[in-house]
Amino acid sequence: MVQKTKTVYFCAGWFTDKQNKAYQNAMNAIKENPTVDVEDSYVPLDHQYKGLRVDEHPELLEDREWATATYNGDRVGVSTSDLLLAVYIPNEEDVGMGVELGMASALGKHILVVIPDEDWGKPINLMSWGIGDQFIKMSELATFDFNKPTFNFYDGAVY
Amino acid sequence: MVQKTKTVYFCAGWFTDKQNKAYQNAMNAIKENPTVDVEDSYVPLDHQYKGLRVDEHPELLEDREWATATYNGDRVGVSTSDLLLAVYIPNEEDVGMGVELGMASALGKHILVVIPDEDWGKPINLMSWGIGDQFIKMSELATFDFNKPTFNFYDGAVY
Amino acid sequence: MVQKTKTVYFCAGWFTDKQNKAYQNAMNAIKENPTVDVEDSYVPLDHQYKGLRVDEHPELLEDREWATATYNGDRVGVSTSDLLLAVYIPNEEDVGMGVELGMASALGKHILVVIPDEDWGKPINLMSWGIGDQFIKMSELATFDFNKPTFNFYDGAVY
Amino acid sequence: MVQKTKTVYFCAGWFTDKQNKAYQNAMNAIKENPTVDVEDSYVPLDHQYKGLRVDEHPELLEDREWATATYNGDRVGVSTSDLLLAVYIPNEEDVGMGVELGMASALGKHILVVIPDEDWGKPINLMSWGIGDQFIKMSELATFDFNKPTFNFYDGAVY
Amino acid sequence: MVQKTKTVYFCAGWFTDKQNKAYQNAMNAIKENPTVDVEDSYVPLDHQYKGLRVDEHPELLEDREWATATYNGDRVGVSTSDLLLAVYIPNEEDVGMGVELGMASALGKHILVVIPDEDWGKPINLMSWGIGDQFIKMSELATFDFNKPTFNFYDGAVY
Amino acid sequence: MVQKTKTVYFCAGWFTDKQNKAYQNAMNAIKENPTVDVEDSYVPLDHQYKGLRVDEHPELLEDREWATATYNGDRVGVSTSDLLLAVYIPNEEDVGMGVELGMASALGKHILVVIPDEDWGKPINLMSWGIGDQFIKMSELATFDFNKPTFNFYDGAVY
Repeated sequence: MVQKTKTVYFCAGWFTDKQNKAYQNAMNAIKENPTVDVEDSYVPLDHQYKGLRVDEHPELLEDREWATATYNGDRVGVSTSDLLLAVYIPNEEDVGMGVELGMASALGKHILVVIPDEDWGKPINLMSWGIGDQFIKMSELATFDFNKPTFNFYDGAVY
Repeated sequence: MVQKTKTVYFCAGWFTDKQNKAYQNAMNAIKENPTVDVEDSYVPLDHQYKGLRVDEHPELLEDREWATATYNGDRVGVSTSDLLLAVYIPNEEDVGMGVELGMASALGKHILVVIPDEDWGKPINLMSWGIGDQFIKMSELATFDFNKPTFNFYDGAVY
Repeated sequence: MVQKTKTVYFCAGWFTDKQNKAYQNAMNAIKENPTVDVEDSYVPLDHQYKGLRVDEHPELLEDREWATATYNGDRVGVSTSDLLLAVYIPNEEDVGMGVELGMASALGKHILVVIPDEDWGKPINLMSWGIGDQFIKMSELATFDFNKPTFNFYDGAVY
Repeated sequence: MVQKTKTVYFCAGWFTDKQNKAYQNAMNAIKENPTVDVEDSYVPLDHQYKGLRVDEHPELLEDREWATATYNGDRVGVSTSDLLLAVYIPNEEDVGMGVELGMASALGKHILVVIPDEDWGKPINLMSWGIGDQFIKMSELATFDFNKPTFNFYDGAVY
Repeated sequence: MVQKTKTVYFCAGWFTDKQNKAYQNAMNAIKENPTVDVEDSYVPLDHQYKGLRVDEHPELLEDREWATATYNGDRVGVSTSDLLLAVYIPNEEDVGMGVELGMASALGKHILVVIPDEDWGKPINLMSWGIGDQFIKMSELATFDFNKPTFNFYDGAVY
Repeated sequence: MVQKTKTVYFCAGWFTDKQNKAYQNAMNAIKENPTVDVEDSYVPLDHQYKGLRVDEHPELLEDREWATATYNGDRVGVSTSDLLLAVYIPNEEDVGMGVELGMASALGKHILVVIPDEDWGKPINLMSWGIGDQFIKMSELATFDFNKPTFNFYDGAVY
């Protein structure tokens, strides 16, 4: 019997300390999770166009070719992954994550929203509340069965 | 000869002073614009479920029925309007706007992004940069021909 | 000032007396309604392939060309109308109506479900309950503003 | 060499004796079929919100939260399964099955329609006839190769 | 009573004499047709990025920014027009037209295929045959009612 | 550790010597490639309706049932395969390939365009340039990792 695995589009910010911590926790959890195929998953930071990272090459931010290709890389990542995994921190959401949630929803991809345990229950944006298919705590991520997606409500308020 | 008009989904924040000012400026501009049908456009603030506004009834934020209906109202607004008009302030974007951009894109709705003149050219989020179809300045909104949508690049960097 | 009008895909059964009565009532109501463009709306019964009606030519029911063309006519009707108007009688729903509801939803068409006043509040199928965008009574149809679609819940149970 | 398997959304009624019999026959057949992953397939009856079944808790049918969650569970089931398997009995079709067929079609899911051998060839609804991708008899289900979907016409008339 | 009009995405080649002649004939026909809004229709040749035409600036063909913007202009043209009008010459089809047909179909846009009278009935590509919604002769274009789209088969063979 | 494999819709012409040679080269390459599941991939030539090939039965080309079923077979092939593999020869593109590219794009399927090494860099149609997600040379096909799709630009001009 072979374990089935799923690929994820790893949708997460890396701009604040809190985001970076949640990013690492989520990455560690899916590496432990036997139902996730991490090697074939799409991690946007690993797909900057031509391998050039903007923090080392800020001039790229003004380069339309670079921006077009990096945007399209992320679009391809969403459409070719089995589902979208959003590492979501209330009050630290960003618009780019929103665009990826909207794209995934339209393609019928499952949207799994993971929230750090210490933030669980805090209010989140109404549109994220509505477009997410399933919400879990960070501590549940390592043992979540990615082969059995379903629907639940977020256990918290909106704003 | 009758003037053709288009309806818009009015996608704009109302959380900061700067957002409120841009909100009013954009609303005034489309009222002046003879190619916009403002009366039949969808303004989310006018469609809170049962006419109850959350600033006056904060208990609604914990009510799943209210949240489901208000989310679905916005979804219907996006899908039944001719195009999406995003009043977009660099550095003040929010995740809800992102979700609406992604939904509109998937439905083939034109995405017109309006940026205040004083912010024009400032860096914006890469995903917004990529999913927007056309970018204009606030001062162009009152005379923009909504019957002639096309494509351009945003004249500024990404982050 | 010219009155804007919307076209509808007229989704209704004509197999029982109750269906026929509701069909006529709904047709009369939209003819009175100044916001509906009845002339350019799509009424499936008027689009049987080659003008041949199956009640007069039952042999057509076995003809794959006839069935393919009639099915595609209905598909085109759903995709080219502004919204889908479902004349819906609890306990007399049929699978064909369900297929049209699913197709309309996927294309982002507004789904307006009209229920005879005497049946209002009776339980309906869970999937119809979930996929409908807006539910009204038959007596509201003649004055409903088709230029102002929004969302509400059906005021009754599911089964 | 590992056998590839597919997951199905198990679309079937359980309201009449005939439906229940076909439901069991189809379930047994896919359990025998080495190309189906039954364990990870989506069976709506197993996904009633909070594990509460409406036959035991009829008050749920009036509960908007329960209905919203159960509807969305089925929507997620359709969108996350590899294909839709419809257990289809002529003259016993229901509108909920139709909605699921329409949703599946829009997402590009293969629609496999299984008809009991004794009903094979009986007329079916025109819209089901048109939206189905492939039609087989119940006796073919246990050996059907789910890794080789294709297209055929239903071998019977429409109504 | 105001005449309703529709906008079209004008999908036509301009590479051979025969294409140019059909292009002009079709353009003249829709200008005569009172149900077409030619002024707001999307004609790709009028939307080359920055108004630069490649026949005068062949260096643009190697410019990724120019190509990205012109491609996206055509994509926006398809998604914001009411329907797609394909001026189709058997044996002179091109792949670009095919891409536009596929995009339009996915967005639920009506696909009207116009064929010069002298070519009517000649075999066309199987995929064009299948994705077109309605086929008419060039001589019918000036009086075709764009407010009454429907379905028919092409009256000719495939190859 | 089991090797994951992907299925492809094998989109390629077989009308000219050059196309036939590229067709064979591409087929041989994916048979060597351990990340492709050739057995479950969709090769249109193997799915002509009822196993009847038009070169042996030219009368089929006038048969609407045969054309409808063969077209729908290809549609099903695109929607049920993991990605679309286009064997693309500059100047020998055809409209049918274009339709399949447009359909695949709309369904969020990855579009991998393979160009013979000797043609690499030659200009291609603008719409193919824009809708392709990733472009590689024929000599790269046997070792390309189909589990790691991403985005790049075609390394050549458009026309």
